[in-house]
Amino acid sequence: MRAVFQQELLEVQSRLVSLAETSEKIMDKASRAFLNSDVSMADEALALAEANEERALDLDELVIKVLATQSPVARDLRILVSALRMSASLERMGSLASHIAAIARYRYPGSAIPDSLRKTFEDMARIDLELVSKATKLLANTDLDLAREIQAQDEAVDRLHRKVFDVVLDPNWSENAMFTVDVTLASRYFERFADHVVDISSKVSFLQTGEWQDAN
Amino acid sequence: MRAVFQQELLEVQSRLVSLAETSEKIMDKASRAFLNSDVSMADEALALAEANEERALDLDELVIKVLATQSPVARDLRILVSALRMSASLERMGSLASHIAAIARYRYPGSAIPDSLRKTFEDMARIDLELVSKATKLLANTDLDLAREIQAQDEAVDRLHRKVFDVVLDPNWSENAMFTVDVTLASRYFERFADHVVDISSKVSFLQTGEWQDAN
Repeated sequence: MRAVFQQELLEVQSRLVSLAETSEKIMDKASRAFLNSDVSMADEALALAEANEERALDLDELVIKVLATQSPVARDLRILVSALRMSASLERMGSLASHIAAIARYRYPGSAIPDSLRKTFEDMARIDLELVSKATKLLANTDLDLAREIQAQDEAVDRLHRKVFDVVLDPNWSENAMFTVDVTLASRYFERFADHVVDISSKVSFLQTGEWQDAN
Repeated sequence: MRAVFQQELLEVQSRLVSLAETSEKIMDKASRAFLNSDVSMADEALALAEANEERALDLDELVIKVLATQSPVARDLRILVSALRMSASLERMGSLASHIAAIARYRYPGSAIPDSLRKTFEDMARIDLELVSKATKLLANTDLDLAREIQAQDEAVDRLHRKVFDVVLDPNWSENAMFTVDVTLASRYFERFADHVVDISSKVSFLQTGEWQDAN
């Protein structure tokens, strides 16, 4: 029974890793769509996000089955409850990235990004991709150094998010309302995406150490 | 043992109802703060949202304890897993409402709402409050008619959310970028708040009927 249970826990873990890999792919495609006004990339991101949602639900069903058949307690129980929450975060990350893809799709063939904010969004996209790649590694192989790096990089995303508002609210901002709406929402989606990576990393750290690292 | 378990399930339910009531209070204060530029209402909303977060965590700990000690299966297990998700939604609703309060606080003593959108935001706030009040009733006393009303009212919020964009992207929109940013974000927060009510209502319906109503 214990061997079966260990096998099931490994299966839950490997599905979380796979969800994280897909979230990374969705953000990769969505940010290319957004930065390069690439509508076919946007469509690929949207389709992948839909598939990711299904797979998150499948993972939840697996966790419920394991809870029902193994009646885990203590740390094993916490791992499974955390898996439910991490699957919700990973699904949400795919969904946030797909919103970024949808903005690109909506503005095509135009760009949703004015020149004055291009560099800021390139940085945000790059850091979000690094963050989700670290989350994947962290889920595959707990490494608390990675958890600390994630915390620091999330702060960099928050700074870029505030910078978007500084630029938009500056008297020199002369773009029309469409650009203002697009960059406001896109920046919010990039920032929330990073928040979910921090949530995942906090949960992994907690399972490892029993202590919340910078609980949020 | 069974009697203890029933007692624990009732305790979980009553704490969910209480979280929903607090989320309603937070949205009530936040929307007053936003509509009337009332900074003390904003502060009350922000403080309540923080307390709500703590109480959602406490509820999660209770659910984990019940899972560990009762090893529930079948519908009882699904009720507890759903309680974890609903507690996450209710906490998030408090947090979204507190973001609306924070916008009001930031623009004080000015208003974050231009006259051309006042009526739209009054309607959004009213419907969000009706939605969360229905969610509270639904959690206290499952009534599938309420679940159907929630679905219809969420569509009304989506229409108001689109209307905000129609107004902002119209060539006649002459407000500055600060208004554009504020109304874009506030509208998004009102819309996400309603989405979470729909999530809660879908979960209650599923537990009652075993079928997803308008799965989302």
